[in-house]
Amino acid sequence: MKSGTNKGKKLNILVCNDDGIDAPGIFALVKELKRIGEITVVAPAKQQSAVGHAITMNSPLRVREYHRDGKFFGFAVDGTPADCVKLAIRALLKKKPNLLVSGINHGSNTAISIIYSGTVSAATEGTIFGIPSIAISLTTYAKADFRYAAKFARKLAQKVADEGLPEGTLLNVNVPPIPEKEIRGVLVTRQGKARWDDRFDARRDPANKEYYWLTGQLEETDKGLQFDQSAVRGKYVSVTPIQYDLTDYEMMAKMKRWSIDRLK
Amino acid sequence: MKSGTNKGKKLNILVCNDDGIDAPGIFALVKELKRIGEITVVAPAKQQSAVGHAITMNSPLRVREYHRDGKFFGFAVDGTPADCVKLAIRALLKKKPNLLVSGINHGSNTAISIIYSGTVSAATEGTIFGIPSIAISLTTYAKADFRYAAKFARKLAQKVADEGLPEGTLLNVNVPPIPEKEIRGVLVTRQGKARWDDRFDARRDPANKEYYWLTGQLEETDKGLQFDQSAVRGKYVSVTPIQYDLTDYEMMAKMKRWSIDRLK
Repeated sequence: MKSGTNKGKKLNILVCNDDGIDAPGIFALVKELKRIGEITVVAPAKQQSAVGHAITMNSPLRVREYHRDGKFFGFAVDGTPADCVKLAIRALLKKKPNLLVSGINHGSNTAISIIYSGTVSAATEGTIFGIPSIAISLTTYAKADFRYAAKFARKLAQKVADEGLPEGTLLNVNVPPIPEKEIRGVLVTRQGKARWDDRFDARRDPANKEYYWLTGQLEETDKGLQFDQSAVRGKYVSVTPIQYDLTDYEMMAKMKRWSIDRLK
Repeated sequence: MKSGTNKGKKLNILVCNDDGIDAPGIFALVKELKRIGEITVVAPAKQQSAVGHAITMNSPLRVREYHRDGKFFGFAVDGTPADCVKLAIRALLKKKPNLLVSGINHGSNTAISIIYSGTVSAATEGTIFGIPSIAISLTTYAKADFRYAAKFARKLAQKVADEGLPEGTLLNVNVPPIPEKEIRGVLVTRQGKARWDDRFDARRDPANKEYYWLTGQLEETDKGLQFDQSAVRGKYVSVTPIQYDLTDYEMMAKMKRWSIDRLK
C-alpha cells in the first residue's frame, strides 16, 4: 500500500488531534482545510496529551456527534488519538480518506517529545493505513493564535496531496508561535536529540500520604538548524519526515560479533 | 551519556513491565535475574498493555510497597510503564541502575506491535536515561510457562552488561512459547512489517446505544527469518536492536526537490 499522490483528485481529509475535539487548534485547522477538501473530524472527547501510541483494548469505545456553534463539527470518541483513527477508518467512514492531518497541537512535538505525542500517533496510525499523514503543532503552551499554523497546514496538505509520501513515512511539523511576518522560512529537519529534564515534585496529601507530580522541561542541548527544536527556536517552521521502523540496522550488523546463538 | 559496558561490575538491575506488578512474567524474570545482580522492581499497579509510550502529566502518581508471598517484592505505581521508570530513576532509587529489563510480557511485541507496547516503552525510557535496556516478551496469550524466557533474559542481560549497548539503542526480545528443547536458536532480527488487521465489533448496550470493541490480529505477511515475528514463528528467539530516532533520513534528502521554503 503506497501513500501516493492525489494530484488533481478531490481531497477527503480525516482530521484528528490529541487536545480534544473542543480545542481551538483543531477548529482553526478545520477552517483552513475546508478550502481544499471535504473534512471529517474524528477526535478524542477529552484532552489526551502524552498518551503516546496508546490504544484501547480492554474497554469499549463510544462515539457521539459533537456540535460547535450549533452545527455538526465531528465525531467525539472517548478514546485515544490512535483509537480515533482506527475507528474512523474501520467503522465510521464510508470511504477511506486520502489525507490525514492531526492537530494543531497546543505545545511542541519536537526531539524526544515525538515518542510521547498523541498528535504524532494519530498521524502514524494514518500512515499505517497507507494514508499520507501530517502531524502539526504550535510550539507554545501559552495562549496561542493558530491562524498561521493552520494556513501552513493547508499549504503543506496540498503539497503532500500533490507529491505523495513514501510508504511508511509521515511529516511532523512544528510552527513557532510568532506573527507570520517574523517567520524566517521553512526547513526540513531531523528529530532533535534533546531529552526531558524530568523531575518529580513529592508532596503530601491531607492524610499525609506521599504523591508525586511529574514536572521538568525539554533540555535545549541541540544546536544548529538541522534539528527540529532548534529550527523552531530560530523562527523557522520545522518539517521532519519520520517513520516507525525502529530497527537499529547499524547495531544489527555489529551484533554479528556477539555470537548470540550461543546464548540459547 | 553512553550505555556502556558494566563488565565485572556489580549489577543493579531495574525491573519493570506493563502487565502489572502481580503478573507471573515479572515474577519469573526477577527470580532469574537475582542470580546475577541486585534487583529493584518498580512496576505498574495494574495491567497497562497497549499504553504505548504514555506518561502521566495531568494527575499525581502514587507508590505503594507490594508484597508477594509475605515478602517485599517491589514498588507498585499507579501509572504507566514509562512513569515507573522515570519515577524509579528520579525519585525512588538512591543509585542509578546499570541495567534495565522490562517484562516478561505475556504476548508478543513484534512488527507494528512495538509502537503500542508498554513493555518496550519502559525499556526505551531506560535507554533515554543512558541505561542499557532490554524488553522481553513471550509470544503467546495463552497460559504460559515463563521459565525458559526468564533464563534467556538472564543470559542476555549478562551479555549486555558485558558488551554494553550504543547510546540510544535497546534490545527487543521475543521468545516463542515452546519447550526449551524445541527452540532452534537465537537470531538478530529486524522489526517486521506486519500490521494489525483491525476490526471493530459494533454492539448495543442495554439502553440501545452503540459501542465498539477493537479486535483483530497481527497479519502474517512477513516471510523469512530476518523479521522478528517470522523468526519467532520459526521457533527462534528473536533479538531486535531498536532505537527512537524516528527521522526518515532518505526522505529528508528527497524533500530537497520540494522547495519547501516556498510554502511559507
